[in-house]
This record gives sequence, C-alpha cells and structure tokens, in this order.
Amino acid sequence: MENWHFKPNGEVNTAADITIRGILNMIMGALDAKDPRPTIPLGHGDPSVFPCFRTTPVAEDAIADVLRSAKFNCYAPNVGIPPARRAIAEYLSTDLPYKLSPDDVYLTVGCAQAIEVVLTVLARPGANILLPRPGYPYYEARAAFSHIEVRHFDLLPENGWEVDLDAVEALADENTVAMVIINPGNPCGNVYSYQHLEKVAETAKKLGILVIADEVYDHLTFGCNPFVPMGVFGETVPVLTLGSISKRWIVPGWRLGWLVTSDPNGILKETKIVDCIIGCLNISSDPATFIQGAILQILEKTKGDFFKKIIDILRQDADIIYQRIREIGCITCPHKPEGSMFVMVKLDLSLLEDIKDDMDFCFKLAKEESVIVLPGVSVGLKNWLRITFAIEPSSLEEALERIKSFCKRHAKKK
Amino acid sequence: MENWHFKPNGEVNTAADITIRGILNMIMGALDAKDPRPTIPLGHGDPSVFPCFRTTPVAEDAIADVLRSAKFNCYAPNVGIPPARRAIAEYLSTDLPYKLSPDDVYLTVGCAQAIEVVLTVLARPGANILLPRPGYPYYEARAAFSHIEVRHFDLLPENGWEVDLDAVEALADENTVAMVIINPGNPCGNVYSYQHLEKVAETAKKLGILVIADEVYDHLTFGCNPFVPMGVFGETVPVLTLGSISKRWIVPGWRLGWLVTSDPNGILKETKIVDCIIGCLNISSDPATFIQGAILQILEKTKGDFFKKIIDILRQDADIIYQRIREIGCITCPHKPEGSMFVMVKLDLSLLEDIKDDMDFCFKLAKEESVIVLPGVSVGLKNWLRITFAIEPSSLEEALERIKSFCKRHAKKK
Repeated sequence: MENWHFKPNGEVNTAADITIRGILNMIMGALDAKDPRPTIPLGHGDPSVFPCFRTTPVAEDAIADVLRSAKFNCYAPNVGIPPARRAIAEYLSTDLPYKLSPDDVYLTVGCAQAIEVVLTVLARPGANILLPRPGYPYYEARAAFSHIEVRHFDLLPENGWEVDLDAVEALADENTVAMVIINPGNPCGNVYSYQHLEKVAETAKKLGILVIADEVYDHLTFGCNPFVPMGVFGETVPVLTLGSISKRWIVPGWRLGWLVTSDPNGILKETKIVDCIIGCLNISSDPATFIQGAILQILEKTKGDFFKKIIDILRQDADIIYQRIREIGCITCPHKPEGSMFVMVKLDLSLLEDIKDDMDFCFKLAKEESVIVLPGVSVGLKNWLRITFAIEPSSLEEALERIKSFCKRHAKKK
Repeated sequence: MENWHFKPNGEVNTAADITIRGILNMIMGALDAKDPRPTIPLGHGDPSVFPCFRTTPVAEDAIADVLRSAKFNCYAPNVGIPPARRAIAEYLSTDLPYKLSPDDVYLTVGCAQAIEVVLTVLARPGANILLPRPGYPYYEARAAFSHIEVRHFDLLPENGWEVDLDAVEALADENTVAMVIINPGNPCGNVYSYQHLEKVAETAKKLGILVIADEVYDHLTFGCNPFVPMGVFGETVPVLTLGSISKRWIVPGWRLGWLVTSDPNGILKETKIVDCIIGCLNISSDPATFIQGAILQILEKTKGDFFKKIIDILRQDADIIYQRIREIGCITCPHKPEGSMFVMVKLDLSLLEDIKDDMDFCFKLAKEESVIVLPGVSVGLKNWLRITFAIEPSSLEEALERIKSFCKRHAKKK
C-alpha cells in the first residue's frame, strides 16, 4: 500500500455511533427473510408509508403549484425566504402571548439541522448541556461532535415523565449553557402541563441557561394535557424552539424545519447568539427553495379535519397499545402515551427465560416475529423498549399479538 | 442584564465571514432604490430566475410524479435511496473508463453539503489542504470550521488558469491530505484538458494526497476542451467527485448533490475514509426524499436539446462578455471563458480616478449603475472581478454598457 497521507476523522464515527438509525439498521439485519409475514416497523417515527397516514392533498398541491411556477428553482437566503419566515412566525404566534417576528424564524433542513445548528452555536471550550434521559440520541451525537459535555437529568416515569428539576439544579454549573426538553415527548409520549413548563422556565432562569424546546411533535396530543409551547415562557427565559412540518403533516422526507428564537426580551440578540445562528446557516446547506415556497399555502390551507383524522388514529393506537401491553406480563407501561408517536415500556427480565437484555430482546423479536422495536438502551434506559405506535391500527394489533406470543414463548417456566 | 451562561461560538462567525453570500449581501445594500433601471445581478451562479434558463419540464414532471405517488414522503437512508444512488452511478459512469457502483455514490443537500462532508471527514489535528487561488470560498470557510490549515496554489491566467503544479509540490508536506480542483472552473471559466488533469493526478499520487474534484459545473462547456471528469484518473489517485443537478439543470434551489468515490482501487475503503463518510452522513441532514426519488427520471429522460439550448446561450454570453470587455480600457480578460458561468477579469486601477480597489469598484458600480459583480478579493484575487455571465444575453449587453459608462465616468483625466 502506498503512503497516503489522508486519514478518517475518528471523532465523526464516535459521534455517529450513537444514532437510532445505526441501531435500527443492525436490528433489521436480524430479520428472517423466510418469514412469510410482513415486517411490522415499530422502530422509528415515520408513519408516512401507511396509507391512513398519508399527508393532506393540500400539502401536495402546494408543492406542485410552487414547482410549476418555476419561481423557486433559485438559491434561497441562508436564513430562509421571507414569505416562509413570515408564515411560520404567524403560525407559531397563535399559541403565544406575544407575536414572533419573521426575523425570529430560521428555516432548516428538517428539525435535525435545527439541532445541529443549535449545538454548533452553543459550543465553546468547557461548555456542558443538560439532556433528558431517556431522550433523543441525535442530541448526544451532535454534542459529541461539537465537543459539548453532556449531563443527563432523569425524566420521572412515576410523574408522567416530568423533568427531575432537582437533578437539573444539581447538575448545572457556570459552564452549563442550556437544557433540552422534548414536548410532546420522544421517547415517552408524555405531554407537559403549563405548570410543569413554567417550573422548567423558572429553573432555567435561575441557572442562567437557555431552554432548547424540541417541539417537532407539536400538536400531536390526544390525552388530557393540551400542547403548550415552551415559548409561552419566553419572557422568563430565552427559548430556542425547534420544529418542523415532518410530524404534524406526516412528511418527514420533505426536510423542512425551523429554529425559532422565542425571546421577546431580545436576550439572544443581545448576547450575539442570533448573529452566530446566522453565521452558522451561512456555512450550512438549505432546505429546498420550492418546499420553502410552499409553506405559506401548507400552513394556511390545511383543514382541521386532516389534523383530526391523524389525531384520532393516534389516539386509537395509544388505546390499543396501552390495553394490549397490560396483557403481557413481562412488559409494563408506567404512563399511557398522550402525545407524539411513542411509548416507553419496561422489560421485566426476571420473567424471561433466555433474554439477556433489551438489545437481545429486540434482535430475537426481529428474527422470530418480524417486528422491529427500539431497545431502550439506545435512548438512555437499559432494559426498556421504545415502541412507535403510529401505524395502521390493525397492524398494531397484529404486532402486539406477535410480541405477546414471543414473550409467552420465552417466559420462565414456573 | 442577567448572568446568562451561554455565549456564541466565535469560530462559527470567523468561518462564516468568508462566504460569497455575505459579501454579495453587503454590496446589494449599496444599491440605489431611486434608480428606475432594473438591477442586473452578475454576482452569483444562479441563472434560474431568467426565463431563458428555465429548467426542462422533464425535471418538473419527474418531481410532480414522484410527489403524487406519495411513496417518498418518508425518511431516506443517510447515504441516499438506492434507486437514486444507482441512477447517479450509471450517469457518471458513461464518462469513465470503469463502472461506478451505487455504493460509490452518497447523496447530499446540494454540492455544498458534499464539501462540508469531505472537509469534516478529512479533518485531523495538524492536517492541511491545498486550495486553488482564485477559488470558491466555501472551501476556506468549511476548512476553517474544521480546523484544517489552508495552503493556496495559484491558477495561472497566462496558461488558461491551469494549476501551478510546481507550487503544489512546494506546498505539500506529510500533513497535506488533499488538493481541490474545480473544473469547469469557478471563478475562472476555464476547462482543463485531459493532459493537464493527468498531470494533476500524477502530482497528487506522488504527494500521497487525494484529489477533491468539484465538478458542479460538469458538462457546461462551450469552448475547445470537452469536459473530462477527474475520476478518469481514479486508477492513478483516489478522487472524491462532488457534483449536483444544480447547474446543468439550472435548479440550484432543489438542493440535490452528490459525493462520489471515484476510486477503482478501493483505497478510500481500505483507509476507512468511506466509513467516515457514512458516519458523517449519519449525523447530517438529508436531501428531500421525493427529490431523490425523481433523480432517475430526470437523468434518464432529459433530452439533448435542453442541454444544447443552455450551452448555446452560455456560449453566446461568453462571446458577448469577451468582446465587450475588450472595449473597456481599465478591465482586461486574460482568458476567454470556455465553461461554467464565470469569468475573471483584471482591473487596472492606474486608469481610474477615484476607485480605491475592487471592493470599492463593486460598491460604486452597484450604487451608480445597479449592476452587481463580485470583487475578486472575495475569491482570492485582489483587484480582479468575478463576473457571472449566465443571464439573458440582452441583459448582459445592457450590464456591460453600464459597466463601460461607469468606467468612462471614473477614468483618469489624461
């Protein structure tokens, strides 16, 4: 071999090892090609492939119209095109006690790029960030890549997965720059009350840190608590709100998201965080311009009955999974899901014969039953499972039937 | 002001300051709103707004078809969807002496993300990279962000902007990881011959560095030299080819690009660069899935007459600009453009009365004549200009008329 001078950047792989995509790919490798039954994917938050979750024709029409106009084949400004920023500012302002300006809105390539930008902007030597456990590991991956130290606070299953605010206070120090909350919850399916979010805001203010509010599942709620955006408390503490059309419109592949400064006091401007966001977007790629061009029409014209249909299916799915899990002895669900598309359930390994841990459970389940679920360890809770219930209800029934017979087959003999 | 703990990441702004977008925005700020004439933008490589450069209906139909199928609303694999990787491998292989595999092709959010990925993957402590001067400053920006030291080699105007290969040899050391060539050339409008590219490959092999071949303007040639992809020399040296549909199809806003390992000897696999590319894409955002889904149809069905029409306009534009620049005393063009959408021309400040430098020239030109051109300093050559000629030929004539009268007005009195 020649003497080549280039070498791979080891830090990239260390960061990339953490992602859900990687783990799901491994588990799918365990599927048995000889099983004639269809594989049922309860692993990731993308129901777009199921006919009952097809997006509204309004959204498809909006894209097609804009495409045919040929006015949006051009490059976009790095922060997003003005009509899209204005439309998103209007859309989000309806739930806030103050009005967002179009300048508060930055368009991103899905919510993923919004996460990337935030963690790039906040990186500085010695900085640390507080992340929820369980959580969404893309944060851990991007924090590792940006050399931000991660400190985990627990979400409390016995309190409806609320943030352990005492832990947050104990973890924070003068190098703590932010805390992340994901609401509606991924992976827990919880929806935070106004009162709890208010306490989160007060805690963050006391600690001098900002709140990164991941609201990619905004408005996907079907329990008692309505969705309250964290930005409601923007007067108390500066909030960076992350969102997208991916989940509410069931179009994760369209890659249109946003990063919003929910900060009526202008602290993020004053501290130059805003300049840094703009700088970061200046050296980043943009969402497709014609998809930006369609957002006004998508936000304005989508009718309530589309949202209602989606919520009704999710509610039905949540009922099914909560009911059926109770019939399975070795799995318990501490909190019925009220939002997002996920539930966290706990494995009782003492009741199982030959299952070593959650990873082993998921690999064997894939191989024997062609059902994919995500091991809890990948979201921070070993020997739990994250189950996506956003699929056709009949397939969900079928999946839970298979999980039940899997558990029965592997149960300890009494 | 409260004691907030978060601060902006200073490195982001240092990197972002280098971009063309930033400089063009500043110059556009100098436009005189009272000028009734339309502004003529000769600053950036995006002719999509001009009716004569409208993309082919084939491409629009492909997107609309895929969108209506609702099969591509889902997330895509981090490397891109298999049919798109296959289609691009086939498309690029027609110009190569070997066949690319779909696994050689990684889909990116435009060519910009391909640059970002390459410079992220090659970053390691102490690494340096060789970049052309003049060049495309996004490379400098991303190298700064990734802490890769930049060393510049000159392109030689008197040799048709060929690479100064002696300089390349003199600059390289054991920490040099790669050299970048942009062909067809941005900002110079040159097209490299087979023989010159062969010498580039041999030099890189001798130095043990890989070649990053930015071919985003591939096939946009209208002079004597045909376009030869650098990958032709992949047997000599491993090549990372960067490309996109942005320029050939005039759809820069669609944000679909690629990073391709043109490396029949498998050196990039062996040295784990490929694993690192995959890892990097695992923690990056993806191009919209339905645009990926349309690429097969776009590549297969676009007819020769569309490409010919675009090339014919560019050739006509190149003739106009070369001719008209010769009528302006204080600007000289060392090499008639034969490819891409740009030409580099030199300012003779000794002939101008009250123009300090290229930046001053561009600001005053914007203010007085509503014509935007890019100061050479922003691409590495002070007191030159980069002019984009890819606009409607009649507007180009008008712009050059305005530049001529601007120069006359500012000429030194004899």
